[in-house]
Amino acid sequence: MNKHQLVTQIREKQSYLCVGLDPSMDKIPAHLHKEKDPFFAFNKAIIDETIDYAVAYKPNTAFYEALGTKGWESLERTLDYLPSSVLKIADAKRGDIGNTSNLYAKAFFDTLHADAVTVAPYMGKDSVTPFLGFEDKWVILLALTSNIGSADFQLFQDSTGRQLFEEVLLKSKDWGTPENMMYVVGATRGEKIAEVRRIIPEHFLLVPGVGAQGGSLQDVALHGMNPDVGILVNSSRGIIYASSDRDFAQVAKKEAIKLRDEMSETLQKLK
Amino acid sequence: MNKHQLVTQIREKQSYLCVGLDPSMDKIPAHLHKEKDPFFAFNKAIIDETIDYAVAYKPNTAFYEALGTKGWESLERTLDYLPSSVLKIADAKRGDIGNTSNLYAKAFFDTLHADAVTVAPYMGKDSVTPFLGFEDKWVILLALTSNIGSADFQLFQDSTGRQLFEEVLLKSKDWGTPENMMYVVGATRGEKIAEVRRIIPEHFLLVPGVGAQGGSLQDVALHGMNPDVGILVNSSRGIIYASSDRDFAQVAKKEAIKLRDEMSETLQKLK
Repeated sequence: MNKHQLVTQIREKQSYLCVGLDPSMDKIPAHLHKEKDPFFAFNKAIIDETIDYAVAYKPNTAFYEALGTKGWESLERTLDYLPSSVLKIADAKRGDIGNTSNLYAKAFFDTLHADAVTVAPYMGKDSVTPFLGFEDKWVILLALTSNIGSADFQLFQDSTGRQLFEEVLLKSKDWGTPENMMYVVGATRGEKIAEVRRIIPEHFLLVPGVGAQGGSLQDVALHGMNPDVGILVNSSRGIIYASSDRDFAQVAKKEAIKLRDEMSETLQKLK
Repeated sequence: MNKHQLVTQIREKQSYLCVGLDPSMDKIPAHLHKEKDPFFAFNKAIIDETIDYAVAYKPNTAFYEALGTKGWESLERTLDYLPSSVLKIADAKRGDIGNTSNLYAKAFFDTLHADAVTVAPYMGKDSVTPFLGFEDKWVILLALTSNIGSADFQLFQDSTGRQLFEEVLLKSKDWGTPENMMYVVGATRGEKIAEVRRIIPEHFLLVPGVGAQGGSLQDVALHGMNPDVGILVNSSRGIIYASSDRDFAQVAKKEAIKLRDEMSETLQKLK
Protein backbone atom coordinates (compact mmCIF):
# COMPACT_ATOMS: atom_id res chain seq x y z
CA MET A 1 0.00 0.00 0.00
CA ASN A 2 1.44 3.38 -0.93
CA LYS A 3 0.97 6.74 0.76
CA HIS A 4 -1.63 8.00 -1.70
CA GLN A 5 -3.76 4.88 -1.15
CA LEU A 6 -3.45 5.27 2.62
CA VAL A 7 -4.46 8.92 2.61
CA THR A 8 -7.38 8.13 0.30
CA GLN A 9 -8.59 5.44 2.70
CA ILE A 10 -8.35 7.86 5.61
CA ARG A 11 -10.40 10.50 3.80
CA GLU A 12 -13.01 7.98 2.68
CA LYS A 13 -13.46 6.36 6.07
CA GLN A 14 -12.96 9.65 7.93
CA SER A 15 -10.70 7.69 10.25
CA TYR A 16 -7.01 7.24 10.93
CA LEU A 17 -7.63 4.42 13.35
CA CYS A 18 -5.24 1.49 13.65
CA VAL A 19 -6.61 -1.48 15.59
CA GLY A 20 -4.04 -3.44 17.59
CA LEU A 21 -4.72 -7.17 17.24
CA ASP A 22 -3.14 -8.46 20.44
CA PRO A 23 -4.99 -11.61 21.48
CA SER A 24 -4.17 -13.61 24.58
CA MET A 25 -5.87 -16.75 25.87
CA ASP A 26 -6.60 -15.24 29.28
CA LYS A 27 -8.43 -12.27 27.76
CA ILE A 28 -10.38 -13.49 24.76
CA PRO A 29 -13.95 -14.62 25.48
CA ALA A 30 -14.23 -18.13 26.91
CA HIS A 31 -16.53 -19.43 24.15
CA LEU A 32 -13.71 -18.96 21.62
CA HIS A 33 -11.34 -21.28 23.47
CA LYS A 34 -12.90 -24.32 21.84
CA GLU A 35 -12.31 -22.97 18.32
CA LYS A 36 -9.60 -24.68 16.30
CA ASP A 37 -7.70 -21.39 16.09
CA PRO A 38 -9.03 -19.16 18.90
CA PHE A 39 -6.75 -16.22 18.08
CA PHE A 40 -7.85 -16.16 14.46
CA ALA A 41 -11.51 -16.57 15.39
CA PHE A 42 -11.15 -13.61 17.75
CA ASN A 43 -9.28 -11.46 15.22
CA LYS A 44 -11.68 -12.31 12.40
CA ALA A 45 -14.69 -11.20 14.45
CA ILE A 46 -12.93 -7.97 15.44
CA ILE A 47 -11.88 -7.27 11.85
CA ASP A 48 -15.35 -7.98 10.45
CA GLU A 49 -16.98 -5.51 12.84
CA THR A 50 -14.37 -2.73 12.68
CA ILE A 51 -13.24 -2.78 9.06
CA ASP A 52 -15.45 0.19 8.07
CA TYR A 53 -13.90 2.39 10.75
CA ALA A 54 -10.22 1.46 10.67
CA VAL A 55 -7.54 2.02 8.03
CA ALA A 56 -4.82 -0.11 9.60
CA TYR A 57 -4.45 -3.25 11.74
CA LYS A 58 -1.44 -4.00 13.86
CA PRO A 59 -0.84 -7.47 15.27
CA ASN A 60 2.00 -7.36 17.80
CA THR A 61 4.07 -10.47 17.09
CA ALA A 62 4.79 -11.14 20.77
CA PHE A 63 1.20 -12.26 21.37
CA TYR A 64 1.50 -14.88 18.64
CA GLU A 65 5.05 -16.04 19.35
CA ALA A 66 4.02 -16.76 22.94
CA LEU A 67 2.11 -19.76 21.53
CA GLY A 68 4.98 -20.96 19.34
CA THR A 69 4.22 -22.48 15.92
CA LYS A 70 0.49 -22.43 16.61
CA GLY A 71 0.61 -18.71 17.29
CA TRP A 72 2.66 -18.09 14.17
CA GLU A 73 -0.07 -19.85 12.18
CA SER A 74 -2.70 -17.55 13.73
CA LEU A 75 -0.59 -14.56 12.70
CA GLU A 76 -0.33 -15.82 9.12
CA ARG A 77 -4.08 -16.43 8.94
CA THR A 78 -4.84 -13.00 10.36
CA LEU A 79 -2.60 -11.16 7.90
CA ASP A 80 -4.02 -13.20 5.02
CA TYR A 81 -7.56 -12.39 6.09
CA LEU A 82 -7.05 -8.63 6.20
CA PRO A 83 -8.14 -7.00 2.91
CA SER A 84 -5.59 -5.13 0.80
CA SER A 85 -7.50 -1.89 1.40
CA VAL A 86 -6.04 -1.59 4.92
CA LEU A 87 -2.43 -1.16 6.02
CA LYS A 88 -1.20 -4.40 7.62
CA ILE A 89 1.41 -3.57 10.24
CA ALA A 90 3.52 -6.30 11.81
CA ASP A 91 4.48 -4.79 15.15
CA ALA A 92 7.66 -6.79 15.50
CA LYS A 93 10.25 -4.21 16.63
CA ARG A 94 12.97 -6.10 14.77
CA GLY A 95 16.43 -4.93 13.77
CA ASP A 96 19.68 -6.81 13.22
CA ILE A 97 22.90 -6.62 11.20
CA GLY A 98 22.28 -5.97 7.50
CA ASN A 99 22.00 -9.46 5.98
CA THR A 100 19.88 -10.57 8.94
CA SER A 101 17.53 -7.58 8.77
CA ASN A 102 17.07 -8.49 5.15
CA LEU A 103 15.73 -11.89 6.26
CA TYR A 104 13.32 -10.23 8.67
CA ALA A 105 12.14 -8.01 5.83
CA LYS A 106 11.52 -11.09 3.70
CA ALA A 107 9.77 -12.83 6.61
CA PHE A 108 7.30 -10.02 7.10
CA PHE A 109 6.88 -8.63 3.59
CA ASP A 110 7.20 -11.73 1.38
CA THR A 111 6.19 -14.62 3.64
CA LEU A 112 3.57 -12.90 5.82
CA HIS A 113 2.47 -10.23 3.29
CA ALA A 114 2.55 -7.40 5.81
CA ASP A 115 2.68 -3.84 4.42
CA ALA A 116 4.75 -2.42 7.24
CA VAL A 117 7.07 -3.57 10.02
CA THR A 118 8.07 -1.73 13.17
CA VAL A 119 11.86 -1.59 13.51
CA ALA A 120 14.11 -0.66 16.46
CA PRO A 121 16.82 1.88 15.61
CA TYR A 122 19.56 0.92 18.10
CA MET A 123 21.75 -0.91 15.56
CA GLY A 124 21.75 1.97 13.07
CA LYS A 125 21.40 2.52 9.37
CA ASP A 126 22.44 -0.88 7.99
CA SER A 127 19.91 -2.57 10.29
CA VAL A 128 17.06 -0.42 8.95
CA THR A 129 17.70 0.09 5.23
CA PRO A 130 17.21 -3.59 4.26
CA PHE A 131 13.51 -3.08 5.06
CA LEU A 132 13.33 -0.16 2.61
CA GLY A 133 13.96 -2.03 -0.63
CA PHE A 134 10.42 -3.37 -1.07
CA GLU A 135 7.87 -1.59 -3.27
CA ASP A 136 4.91 -0.08 -1.41
CA LYS A 137 6.19 -1.48 1.89
CA TRP A 138 6.99 0.55 4.97
CA VAL A 139 9.42 0.75 7.85
CA ILE A 140 7.90 2.19 11.00
CA LEU A 141 10.91 3.18 13.07
CA LEU A 142 10.70 3.51 16.85
CA ALA A 143 11.45 7.10 17.80
CA LEU A 144 9.69 7.94 21.06
CA THR A 145 7.75 5.08 22.60
CA SER A 146 4.81 5.29 24.98
CA ASN A 147 6.19 3.32 27.94
CA ILE A 148 7.84 4.68 31.10
CA GLY A 149 11.20 3.21 30.09
CA SER A 150 11.27 5.44 27.01
CA ALA A 151 12.87 8.07 29.27
CA ASP A 152 15.86 5.81 30.02
CA PHE A 153 17.68 6.16 26.70
CA GLN A 154 15.41 7.95 24.22
CA LEU A 155 15.84 11.22 26.16
CA PHE A 156 19.63 10.84 26.55
CA GLN A 157 21.02 14.13 25.26
CA ASP A 158 24.19 15.48 23.70
CA SER A 159 26.03 18.69 24.60
CA THR A 160 23.66 20.77 22.44
CA GLY A 161 20.57 19.42 24.19
CA ARG A 162 19.61 17.15 21.31
CA GLN A 163 17.92 14.01 22.60
CA LEU A 164 18.48 10.51 21.24
CA PHE A 165 14.99 10.27 19.71
CA GLU A 166 15.68 13.53 17.86
CA GLU A 167 19.03 12.18 16.67
CA VAL A 168 17.18 9.08 15.43
CA LEU A 169 14.72 11.25 13.49
CA LEU A 170 17.41 13.53 12.06
CA LYS A 171 19.73 10.76 10.95
CA SER A 172 17.14 8.33 9.68
CA LYS A 173 14.77 10.68 7.85
CA ASP A 174 16.88 10.52 4.70
CA TRP A 175 17.42 6.75 4.77
CA GLY A 176 14.03 6.45 3.17
CA THR A 177 11.30 8.92 2.21
CA PRO A 178 7.87 9.88 3.57
CA GLU A 179 6.63 7.30 1.05
CA ASN A 180 8.27 4.34 2.79
CA MET A 181 9.06 5.39 6.36
CA MET A 182 6.88 6.25 9.33
CA TYR A 183 7.78 6.76 12.99
CA VAL A 184 6.40 5.48 16.27
CA VAL A 185 5.74 8.46 18.53
CA GLY A 186 3.85 7.75 21.75
CA ALA A 187 0.80 9.79 22.67
CA THR A 188 1.68 9.68 26.35
CA ARG A 189 4.24 12.38 25.57
CA GLY A 190 1.85 14.70 23.70
CA GLU A 191 4.08 17.75 24.15
CA LYS A 192 6.83 15.92 22.27
CA ILE A 193 4.78 15.40 19.11
CA ALA A 194 5.21 19.06 18.16
CA GLU A 195 8.99 18.65 18.54
CA VAL A 196 8.86 15.60 16.30
CA ARG A 197 6.88 17.49 13.67
CA ARG A 198 9.50 20.22 13.46
CA ILE A 199 12.09 17.60 12.45
CA ILE A 200 9.92 15.46 10.19
CA PRO A 201 7.01 17.55 8.86
CA GLU A 202 6.02 15.09 6.14
CA HIS A 203 6.30 11.56 7.56
CA PHE A 204 3.37 9.61 8.92
CA LEU A 205 3.44 8.96 12.66
CA LEU A 206 2.09 5.79 14.23
CA VAL A 207 0.84 6.86 17.62
CA PRO A 208 0.22 4.27 20.34
CA GLY A 209 -0.77 5.11 23.87
CA VAL A 210 -4.15 6.75 23.28
CA GLY A 211 -6.76 5.40 25.67
CA ALA A 212 -5.54 2.66 28.02
CA GLN A 213 -2.08 4.26 28.25
CA GLY A 214 -3.49 7.73 28.89
CA GLY A 215 -2.76 9.87 25.79
CA SER A 216 -5.30 12.34 24.36
CA LEU A 217 -6.51 12.04 20.77
CA GLN A 218 -7.15 15.79 20.56
CA ASP A 219 -3.55 16.55 21.55
CA VAL A 220 -2.21 14.07 19.05
CA ALA A 221 -4.31 15.54 16.24
CA LEU A 222 -3.44 19.10 17.18
CA HIS A 223 0.31 18.55 17.23
CA GLY A 224 0.69 15.63 14.86
CA MET A 225 -1.48 16.28 11.81
CA ASN A 226 -0.03 17.59 8.57
CA PRO A 227 -1.71 18.40 5.23
CA ASP A 228 -1.69 14.67 4.32
CA VAL A 229 -3.22 13.82 7.72
CA GLY A 230 0.09 12.25 8.72
CA ILE A 231 -1.07 10.25 11.73
CA LEU A 232 -2.30 6.78 12.49
CA VAL A 233 -3.58 6.37 16.02
CA ASN A 234 -3.53 2.90 17.48
CA SER A 235 -5.95 1.46 19.97
CA SER A 236 -5.60 -2.13 21.14
CA ARG A 237 -7.11 -2.97 24.52
CA GLY A 238 -9.62 -0.10 24.38
CA ILE A 239 -11.27 -1.76 21.38
CA ILE A 240 -10.59 -5.47 21.38
CA TYR A 241 -11.15 -6.00 25.10
CA ALA A 242 -13.97 -3.49 25.58
CA SER A 243 -16.12 -6.54 26.36
CA SER A 244 -15.04 -10.06 27.27
CA ASP A 245 -18.46 -11.55 26.58
CA ARG A 246 -20.07 -13.01 23.47
CA ASP A 247 -20.80 -9.46 22.31
CA PHE A 248 -17.09 -8.54 22.26
CA ALA A 249 -17.00 -7.80 18.52
CA GLN A 250 -20.12 -5.62 18.60
CA VAL A 251 -18.77 -3.68 21.57
CA ALA A 252 -15.44 -3.35 19.74
CA LYS A 253 -17.39 -1.89 16.82
CA LYS A 254 -19.01 0.70 19.09
CA GLU A 255 -15.62 1.73 20.47
CA ALA A 256 -14.18 1.94 16.95
CA ILE A 257 -17.10 4.14 15.87
CA LYS A 258 -16.54 6.42 18.88
CA LEU A 259 -12.93 6.90 17.87
CA ARG A 260 -13.83 7.30 14.20
CA ASP A 261 -16.33 10.03 15.13
CA GLU A 262 -13.73 11.86 17.17
CA MET A 263 -11.20 11.47 14.37
CA SER A 264 -13.71 12.65 11.80
CA GLU A 265 -14.12 15.90 13.74
CA THR A 266 -10.38 16.50 13.77
CA LEU A 267 -10.26 15.78 10.04
CA GLN A 268 -12.96 18.39 9.37
CA LYS A 269 -10.76 20.98 11.04
CA LEU A 270 -7.91 20.00 8.73
CA LYS A 271 -9.79 20.97 5.57
CA MET B 1 21.58 -22.82 33.09
CA ASN B 2 23.23 -20.72 35.80
CA LYS B 3 26.58 -18.94 35.77
CA HIS B 4 28.40 -21.59 37.77
CA GLN B 5 27.27 -24.30 35.34
CA LEU B 6 28.36 -22.19 32.39
CA VAL B 7 31.82 -21.48 33.82
CA THR B 8 32.24 -25.17 34.68
CA GLN B 9 31.40 -26.13 31.07
CA ILE B 10 33.91 -23.61 29.76
CA ARG B 11 36.68 -24.97 32.00
CA GLU B 12 35.89 -28.58 31.13
CA LYS B 13 35.69 -28.03 27.38
CA GLN B 14 38.50 -25.43 27.43
CA SER B 15 36.27 -23.42 25.16
CA TYR B 16 34.03 -20.38 25.31
CA LEU B 17 32.77 -20.93 21.79
CA CYS B 18 29.21 -20.10 20.82
CA VAL B 19 28.11 -21.52 17.47
CA GLY B 20 25.64 -19.39 15.52
CA LEU B 21 22.99 -21.61 13.94
CA ASP B 22 21.90 -19.43 11.03
CA PRO B 23 20.72 -21.72 8.23
CA SER B 24 19.47 -20.46 4.89
CA MET B 25 18.29 -22.51 1.91
CA ASP B 26 20.77 -20.91 -0.49
CA LYS B 27 23.72 -21.83 1.70
CA ILE B 28 23.08 -25.25 3.20
CA PRO B 29 24.37 -28.22 1.16
CA ALA B 30 22.12 -29.20 -1.74
CA HIS B 31 21.68 -32.81 -0.57
CA LEU B 32 19.82 -31.55 2.52
CA HIS B 33 17.14 -29.79 0.48
CA LYS B 34 15.20 -33.02 0.09
CA GLU B 35 15.04 -33.63 3.85
CA LYS B 36 11.67 -33.10 5.50
CA ASP B 37 13.14 -30.34 7.66
CA PRO B 38 16.35 -29.18 5.94
CA PHE B 39 17.20 -26.55 8.57
CA PHE B 40 16.94 -29.05 11.40
CA ALA B 41 18.89 -31.69 9.48
CA PHE B 42 21.63 -29.11 8.92
CA ASN B 43 21.64 -27.90 12.53
CA LYS B 44 21.59 -31.43 13.94
CA ALA B 45 24.66 -32.41 11.92
CA ILE B 46 26.49 -29.24 13.00
CA ILE B 47 25.54 -29.76 16.65
CA ASP B 48 26.56 -33.43 16.64
CA GLU B 49 30.02 -32.61 15.32
CA THR B 50 30.72 -29.49 17.38
CA ILE B 51 29.12 -30.27 20.73
CA ASP B 52 32.45 -31.22 22.38
CA TYR B 53 34.02 -27.88 21.49
CA ALA B 54 31.20 -25.41 22.06
CA VAL B 55 29.46 -24.26 25.26
CA ALA B 56 26.66 -22.28 23.64
CA TYR B 57 24.53 -22.29 20.48
CA LYS B 58 22.80 -19.27 19.10
CA PRO B 59 20.08 -19.57 16.47
CA ASN B 60 19.22 -16.14 15.09
CA THR B 61 15.44 -16.10 14.82
CA ALA B 62 15.44 -14.12 11.54
CA PHE B 63 16.72 -17.13 9.61
CA TYR B 64 13.79 -19.22 10.82
CA GLU B 65 11.07 -16.58 10.58
CA ALA B 66 12.00 -16.04 6.94
CA LEU B 67 10.33 -19.42 6.28
CA GLY B 68 7.22 -18.66 8.32
CA THR B 69 5.58 -21.44 10.35
CA LYS B 70 7.88 -24.06 8.83
CA GLY B 71 10.91 -22.12 10.00
CA TRP B 72 9.46 -21.68 13.46
CA GLU B 73 9.10 -25.47 13.67
CA SER B 74 12.77 -25.89 12.72
CA LEU B 75 13.70 -23.46 15.49
CA GLU B 76 11.64 -25.41 18.04
CA ARG B 77 13.22 -28.70 16.95
CA THR B 78 16.70 -27.24 17.11
CA LEU B 79 16.28 -25.85 20.62
CA ASP B 80 14.73 -29.12 21.78
CA TYR B 81 17.61 -31.10 20.34
CA LEU B 82 20.33 -29.09 22.09
CA PRO B 83 21.39 -30.78 25.35
CA SER B 84 20.89 -28.96 28.66
CA SER B 85 24.67 -28.85 29.13
CA VAL B 86 24.98 -25.98 26.65
CA LEU B 87 23.58 -22.46 26.81
CA LYS B 88 20.75 -22.09 24.31
CA ILE B 89 20.62 -18.51 23.11
CA ALA B 90 17.68 -17.23 21.06
CA ASP B 91 19.19 -14.33 19.15
CA ALA B 92 15.93 -12.47 18.77
CA LYS B 93 16.82 -8.87 19.66
CA ARG B 94 13.32 -8.35 21.05
CA GLY B 95 12.06 -5.60 23.33
CA ASP B 96 8.61 -4.05 23.77
CA ILE B 97 6.44 -2.36 26.39
CA GLY B 98 6.35 -4.27 29.67
CA ASN B 99 3.38 -6.61 29.31
CA THR B 100 4.44 -7.41 25.75
CA SER B 101 8.06 -8.09 26.64
CA ASN B 102 6.68 -10.49 29.20
CA LEU B 103 5.03 -12.44 26.36
CA TYR B 104 8.31 -12.55 24.44
CA ALA B 105 10.00 -13.86 27.58
CA LYS B 106 7.36 -16.59 27.82
CA ALA B 107 7.73 -17.36 24.11
CA PHE B 108 11.45 -17.93 24.35
CA PHE B 109 11.87 -19.29 27.86
CA ASP B 110 8.69 -21.31 28.40
CA THR B 111 7.53 -22.28 24.91
CA LEU B 112 10.91 -22.64 23.17
CA HIS B 113 13.00 -23.57 26.25
CA ALA B 114 15.83 -21.19 25.42
CA ASP B 115 18.20 -20.27 28.26
CA ALA B 116 18.89 -16.76 27.03
CA VAL B 117 17.40 -14.12 24.75
CA THR B 118 19.10 -11.15 23.16
CA VAL B 119 17.19 -7.95 23.91
CA ALA B 120 17.41 -4.44 22.39
CA PRO B 121 17.67 -1.63 24.98
CA TYR B 122 16.03 1.26 23.11
CA MET B 123 12.71 1.08 24.99
CA GLY B 124 14.36 1.13 28.43
CA LYS B 125 14.02 -0.61 31.75
CA ASP B 126 10.42 -1.82 31.63
CA SER B 127 11.08 -3.47 28.26
CA VAL B 128 14.03 -5.44 29.66
CA THR B 129 13.13 -6.43 33.21
CA PRO B 130 10.24 -8.78 32.24
CA PHE B 131 12.91 -11.12 30.84
CA LEU B 132 14.70 -11.18 34.22
CA GLY B 133 12.05 -12.94 36.27
CA PHE B 134 12.87 -16.49 35.14
CA GLU B 135 15.14 -18.77 37.19
CA ASP B 136 18.45 -19.63 35.52
CA LYS B 137 17.47 -17.70 32.40
CA TRP B 138 19.42 -14.81 30.92
CA VAL B 139 18.93 -11.49 29.17
CA ILE B 140 21.73 -10.66 26.77
CA LEU B 141 21.36 -6.93 26.21
CA LEU B 142 22.69 -5.23 23.09
CA ALA B 143 25.36 -2.73 24.11
CA LEU B 144 27.84 -2.28 21.27
CA THR B 145 27.06 -4.29 18.16
CA SER B 146 29.49 -5.42 15.46
CA ASN B 147 27.92 -3.77 12.40
CA ILE B 148 28.87 -0.48 10.75
CA GLY B 149 25.57 1.11 11.81
CA SER B 150 26.51 0.66 15.47
CA ALA B 151 28.26 4.04 15.15
CA ASP B 152 25.00 5.81 14.25
CA PHE B 153 23.42 5.88 17.69
CA GLN B 154 25.46 3.69 20.05
CA LEU B 155 28.29 6.25 20.00
CA PHE B 156 25.97 9.26 20.46
CA GLN B 157 27.47 11.11 23.43
CA ASP B 158 26.37 13.44 26.18
CA SER B 159 28.11 16.62 27.36
CA THR B 160 30.54 14.63 29.53
CA GLY B 161 31.63 12.44 26.62
CA ARG B 162 29.63 9.43 27.79
CA GLN B 163 28.42 7.41 24.82
CA LEU B 164 25.00 5.80 24.55
CA PHE B 165 26.37 2.24 24.84
CA GLU B 166 28.09 3.28 28.09
CA GLU B 167 24.85 4.81 29.34
CA VAL B 168 23.12 1.52 28.51
CA LEU B 169 25.71 -0.42 30.51
CA LEU B 170 25.64 1.98 33.46
CA LYS B 171 21.86 2.17 33.73
CA SER B 172 21.09 -1.46 33.05
CA LYS B 173 23.79 -3.19 35.08
CA ASP B 174 21.68 -3.04 38.21
CA TRP B 175 18.42 -4.13 36.57
CA GLY B 176 19.67 -7.67 36.95
CA THR B 177 22.90 -9.24 38.18
CA PRO B 178 25.92 -10.92 36.58
CA GLU B 179 23.93 -14.11 37.22
CA ASN B 180 21.13 -13.23 34.81
CA MET B 181 22.43 -10.55 32.47
CA MET B 182 25.09 -10.55 29.77
CA TYR B 183 25.90 -7.96 27.12
CA VAL B 184 26.51 -8.09 23.39
CA VAL B 185 29.80 -6.35 22.64
CA GLY B 186 31.12 -6.67 19.11
CA ALA B 187 34.68 -7.79 18.47
CA THR B 188 35.04 -5.46 15.49
CA ARG B 189 35.53 -2.69 18.04
CA GLY B 190 38.22 -4.48 20.07
CA GLU B 191 39.49 -1.26 21.66
CA LYS B 192 36.03 -0.71 23.13
CA ILE B 193 35.96 -3.99 25.06
CA ALA B 194 38.37 -2.58 27.66
CA GLU B 195 36.04 0.42 28.12
CA VAL B 196 33.12 -1.96 28.60
CA ARG B 197 35.04 -3.96 31.20
CA ARG B 198 35.69 -0.85 33.29
CA ILE B 199 31.92 -0.36 33.61
CA ILE B 200 30.86 -3.99 34.02
CA PRO B 201 33.80 -6.03 35.36
CA GLU B 202 31.70 -9.06 36.30
CA HIS B 203 29.14 -9.64 33.55
CA PHE B 204 29.60 -12.13 30.77
CA LEU B 205 29.99 -10.64 27.29
CA LEU B 206 28.66 -12.29 24.17
CA VAL B 207 31.07 -11.29 21.44
CA PRO B 208 30.05 -11.60 17.79
CA GLY B 209 32.18 -10.41 14.90
CA VAL B 210 35.22 -12.68 15.30
CA GLY B 211 36.23 -14.21 11.96
CA ALA B 212 33.99 -13.28 9.02
CA GLN B 213 33.39 -9.79 10.44
CA GLY B 214 37.08 -9.19 11.13
CA GLY B 215 37.57 -9.14 14.93
CA SER B 216 40.54 -10.80 16.65
CA LEU B 217 40.05 -13.52 19.24
CA GLN B 218 43.31 -12.57 20.99
CA ASP B 219 42.16 -8.97 21.41
CA VAL B 220 38.80 -10.07 22.74
CA ALA B 221 40.42 -12.42 25.27
CA LEU B 222 43.01 -9.83 26.33
CA HIS B 223 40.48 -7.08 26.99
CA GLY B 224 37.37 -9.06 27.76
CA MET B 225 38.30 -11.90 30.10
CA ASN B 226 37.68 -11.71 33.82
CA PRO B 227 38.43 -14.23 36.62
CA ASP B 228 35.24 -16.16 35.69
CA VAL B 229 36.29 -16.15 32.01
CA GLY B 230 33.45 -13.72 31.29
CA ILE B 231 33.28 -14.09 27.52
CA LEU B 232 31.43 -16.14 24.98
CA VAL B 233 32.73 -15.72 21.45
CA ASN B 234 30.33 -16.42 18.64
CA SER B 235 31.19 -17.78 15.23
CA SER B 236 28.45 -18.45 12.69
CA ARG B 237 29.49 -18.45 9.03
CA GLY B 238 33.13 -19.31 9.82
CA ILE B 239 31.98 -22.66 11.21
CA ILE B 240 28.66 -23.65 9.69
CA TYR B 241 29.51 -22.61 6.12
CA ALA B 242 33.20 -23.59 6.15
CA SER B 243 32.20 -26.18 3.54
CA SER B 244 29.05 -26.37 1.44
CA ASP B 245 29.62 -30.00 0.46
CA ARG B 246 28.55 -33.28 2.02
CA ASP B 247 31.46 -32.94 4.47
CA PHE B 248 30.09 -29.65 5.87
CA ALA B 249 29.68 -30.98 9.40
CA GLN B 250 33.17 -32.51 9.55
CA VAL B 251 34.71 -29.29 8.26
CA ALA B 252 32.64 -27.36 10.80
CA LYS B 253 34.13 -29.63 13.46
CA LYS B 254 37.68 -28.80 12.30
CA GLU B 255 36.92 -25.07 12.47
CA ALA B 256 35.39 -25.46 15.92
CA ILE B 257 38.49 -27.35 17.09
CA LYS B 258 40.74 -24.59 15.73
CA LEU B 259 38.83 -22.00 17.74
CA ARG B 260 38.72 -24.25 20.81
CA ASP B 261 42.51 -24.66 20.63
CA GLU B 262 43.02 -20.93 20.37
CA MET B 263 40.57 -20.36 23.24
CA SER B 264 42.25 -23.03 25.32
CA GLU B 265 45.55 -21.13 25.05
CA THR B 266 43.94 -17.92 26.26
CA LEU B 267 42.34 -19.83 29.13
CA GLN B 268 45.75 -21.19 30.20
CA LYS B 269 46.99 -17.62 30.53
CA LEU B 270 44.02 -16.83 32.78
CA LYS B 271 45.03 -19.37 35.44
